[in-house]
Amino acid sequence: MCIKEFYLSDSQALTDVSIDSLLRVFTVPEKAEATLNQVDRELSLDIAAFLNARVVATEKDLAEIEAEFASAVIPEEPVRVAHHIDNLMEKLVAHSVNTYAPGFIGHMTSALPYFMLPLSKIMVALNQNVVKTETSKAFTPMERQVLGMMHHLVFARAEAFYRHWLHHADGQLGAMCSGGTVANITALWVARNRCYGPKPGFAGIAKAGWSQALAAYGDRDAVVLVSERGHYSLSKAADVLGIGRDNIRSVPCTDSGSIDIQQLSDIIASCHDRGERVISLVAVAGSTETGCIDALDEMAVIAEREGIWLHVDAAWGGPALFSDKHRSLLKGIERADSVTIDAHKQMYVPMGVGMVLFRDPESQSSIRHHANYIIRQGSKDLGSSTLEGSRPAMSMLVHAGLHIFGRRGYGLLVENNIQRCKYFSTLIDMAADFELVSVPVLNILTYRYVPAPLQRWLESPENAASEVSVRVELLLNQATQILQRAQRERGQYFVSRTSLPHARQQGLLKTVFRVVLANPLTTDEILTAILQEQRELAAGPAVKVLWQEIKQLSGVALI
Amino acid sequence: MCIKEFYLSDSQALTDVSIDSLLRVFTVPEKAEATLNQVDRELSLDIAAFLNARVVATEKDLAEIEAEFASAVIPEEPVRVAHHIDNLMEKLVAHSVNTYAPGFIGHMTSALPYFMLPLSKIMVALNQNVVKTETSKAFTPMERQVLGMMHHLVFARAEAFYRHWLHHADGQLGAMCSGGTVANITALWVARNRCYGPKPGFAGIAKAGWSQALAAYGDRDAVVLVSERGHYSLSKAADVLGIGRDNIRSVPCTDSGSIDIQQLSDIIASCHDRGERVISLVAVAGSTETGCIDALDEMAVIAEREGIWLHVDAAWGGPALFSDKHRSLLKGIERADSVTIDAHKQMYVPMGVGMVLFRDPESQSSIRHHANYIIRQGSKDLGSSTLEGSRPAMSMLVHAGLHIFGRRGYGLLVENNIQRCKYFSTLIDMAADFELVSVPVLNILTYRYVPAPLQRWLESPENAASEVSVRVELLLNQATQILQRAQRERGQYFVSRTSLPHARQQGLLKTVFRVVLANPLTTDEILTAILQEQRELAAGPAVKVLWQEIKQLSGVALI
Repeated sequence: MCIKEFYLSDSQALTDVSIDSLLRVFTVPEKAEATLNQVDRELSLDIAAFLNARVVATEKDLAEIEAEFASAVIPEEPVRVAHHIDNLMEKLVAHSVNTYAPGFIGHMTSALPYFMLPLSKIMVALNQNVVKTETSKAFTPMERQVLGMMHHLVFARAEAFYRHWLHHADGQLGAMCSGGTVANITALWVARNRCYGPKPGFAGIAKAGWSQALAAYGDRDAVVLVSERGHYSLSKAADVLGIGRDNIRSVPCTDSGSIDIQQLSDIIASCHDRGERVISLVAVAGSTETGCIDALDEMAVIAEREGIWLHVDAAWGGPALFSDKHRSLLKGIERADSVTIDAHKQMYVPMGVGMVLFRDPESQSSIRHHANYIIRQGSKDLGSSTLEGSRPAMSMLVHAGLHIFGRRGYGLLVENNIQRCKYFSTLIDMAADFELVSVPVLNILTYRYVPAPLQRWLESPENAASEVSVRVELLLNQATQILQRAQRERGQYFVSRTSLPHARQQGLLKTVFRVVLANPLTTDEILTAILQEQRELAAGPAVKVLWQEIKQLSGVALI
Repeated sequence: MCIKEFYLSDSQALTDVSIDSLLRVFTVPEKAEATLNQVDRELSLDIAAFLNARVVATEKDLAEIEAEFASAVIPEEPVRVAHHIDNLMEKLVAHSVNTYAPGFIGHMTSALPYFMLPLSKIMVALNQNVVKTETSKAFTPMERQVLGMMHHLVFARAEAFYRHWLHHADGQLGAMCSGGTVANITALWVARNRCYGPKPGFAGIAKAGWSQALAAYGDRDAVVLVSERGHYSLSKAADVLGIGRDNIRSVPCTDSGSIDIQQLSDIIASCHDRGERVISLVAVAGSTETGCIDALDEMAVIAEREGIWLHVDAAWGGPALFSDKHRSLLKGIERADSVTIDAHKQMYVPMGVGMVLFRDPESQSSIRHHANYIIRQGSKDLGSSTLEGSRPAMSMLVHAGLHIFGRRGYGLLVENNIQRCKYFSTLIDMAADFELVSVPVLNILTYRYVPAPLQRWLESPENAASEVSVRVELLLNQATQILQRAQRERGQYFVSRTSLPHARQQGLLKTVFRVVLANPLTTDEILTAILQEQRELAAGPAVKVLWQEIKQLSGVALI
């Protein structure tokens, strides 16, 4: 059983596999009427229609999907492209997440501007590797420009600064990364290596490793400070970098969800007392769970006073800088040493693009490296100071966004998102049976469904202090979890969920719906409908037994 | 100055930017005759023709290109898509590297099978995030299948093993990564965390960091052993992971370029003597510079005997496993603990896909992590044990390659590359004025141009021992460098260059042309033409003064 020119035509018979037939896959394009080209055209015509037609709304059980991907043996023989595409559409695409659906407001991925699709195809066709200029030519200056523009957005240094550094071999204004996690790791890697740089008798941590670093600097240990709202990638970074997850010291937040500055100062002092060096202070600018922003200016004051590296994780919130109206939310960010911003979130670039920007273009020298056949001394190769090696030119898509939208276009999109989130929070606030848990600063909010009489019962200080209320809260958590899943399974709307510290109940976590308003296609009507569906589900059989249990405990009749 | 529906039509007047006009970028596709759609169609019709028409062959000076990307200020106002695309074509695409050109045999990137382009567009349109099932649904089982198939290719465990583990929440067969560097870092991260795992009085390095790890295990230091042909990403990994670049102990190679097993054993013994723990032994399976492969079976014996983690960096050479004919080159790989393979190299997938495979599906538990809103305990979310967080579903392209080519198809492509490389090495061997420096095992070779009389002069033991010969060698290095650049600038052919230890001259590096035969479109005629052009350049003005200097030193008349 073999195949001849299997790729050329959907209908051709499979007769022989030879190297000649394989080579044609690289040279002879498929005919216009071939399945894959049809799909391609369908996509170009109307993405939303394509997804609505091809993606099944109701959820298929994961175990059933797994059964379709059960073999671990690579198929021996080639198959026709058309055959594979048919399979793909039926088994994979049909059961993907419709990220364009305006009712799916639980993820950070959203609809993309249509022009990103053909542009991505151009990027893939060119297949440049921005690790070095030799494999990317003009793409290296282009990427440096993107980093410069984002650097300017954040740090707004003088024109002469950019004229000097933008294309300078001895510095970089930042690094494009596959995402915010790699960006955060890179920032802390630089911070760590600068803390434990070379000095007489010590080659520096980059060369000598941790084994001598602490002794060389007379430290007992090294820590990173971040609010309890910090992203989990920071803990991962601490693990990877050998700092240790337990050495990410979690600083409590104020009620507004931003870092408690007084406690931060106290913790720094106690670190000094214990002989622990603070490698970095990490500020959160748009936390993943609630979108809250730390007081960047106040943290910068502390960082400068203590001589500590200030990193701002603005993976989510960074694009607020595009907006004249909301830019001030991030006031102080220009005083940071490094800043993470994700392009695949609020810059509407496809998945796989984050960046870290460094105020000082020479910061990355602490992680610079060279090799004989690549990124030689004196080269402008971007790979000399990135965590990743070979990398696609995703920066081309950011470059397109920055030009096609312009600062003003991105600003308007940000403002639209924040405005819609404000609207939704008003809607929740006005509804007697919903409780707004975190007030949105940007475009993320959390809330839960709590029947009105139960809200009153829980708010009474007397009940709140009782042990019964803890049991009620745990049942409410269960209800929220069930409602979230039930709505997801219906397939029309989707909010995510998370757990946040409970304001009234020390040590208890509150399960909440989490909403991210980033899809520009989401309308006010959809938001109303989401609450309505949750109300319906809450009145249905899925949570009935929970309301009964709550009634027995609290005496409050709910349904 | 503002813009109305700027994205809709190339010709429309720019009149007003509003949120409504911006939103249409997400909903209304551009007209068929629009510039971007024309480019898209051109690409679908014939990639090679597109690149030949759009990419300028002769090299533009980097400084001139930089002048086109000189502004660091984000443009204030949006521009029409068509306007941006015109700019892009002229300033960026025209000065990119034509990776399809069959005469460009210096890079590891090559032409792509045409079906990868529309498939990439589908991937981008779906914009799934494989960090968790909630944002990727069927893409998580699909990616697990890809990892399973590649795991089976490498380790060939029993069917029951895959039935149990393929979709199991408690294990992963590996991790998709943005490239081989992240794959190598991930492997050594796992190895490090397993070496310094939790035990009474020590929480484990993941939590506690390096500060306590060495003391808890009674080590003076920790090292990683790899041959001197190891990829520079290993040194970067040692830096990132806090092991230290100097603790990558370079093991000498035999003349064939593979690790010297006796010296490896000696070095391990001396590490023990010094109280240094060996975190991992890294074997190279297809070195970047010469394509040579370490004796994996012998290294596995040592690793098993010493209880050391064996990682095989098969980023380049891994796909030899597809070929019945060449699979034996990697004999012993199935005994490794972890293996890196890049898909964006010899699996003809676009830039940005590597993977690391773990023999034991529970290995990754040493780096597993959770968060409240993501990758919760018990979930099958792939993000629980990857270095990266949010990730695109590039595995879909590997999945397509594995099915459309099949094992046999990939095998044939590998065999074709190796055969062509053998042919080229014969060609070089037969030419009196070229010197083959590294004999190819896979499809990489190195060589240089040395006029025939000079070759004879250098080979005489008497001359080789003289100090003059060192000066001649240095001049030859210069000549090789100039010839390589001159050929690149002509724009029709491209070989890369590197420096290798000189077999005859201790401590001296030999500059060589480096050739990677991975583009299936490269023909024997092109290889002949490359040598011919180098010969012509060697007879030209660019190196004339070097030949004169060499003549003065050696007395050998060259031209």
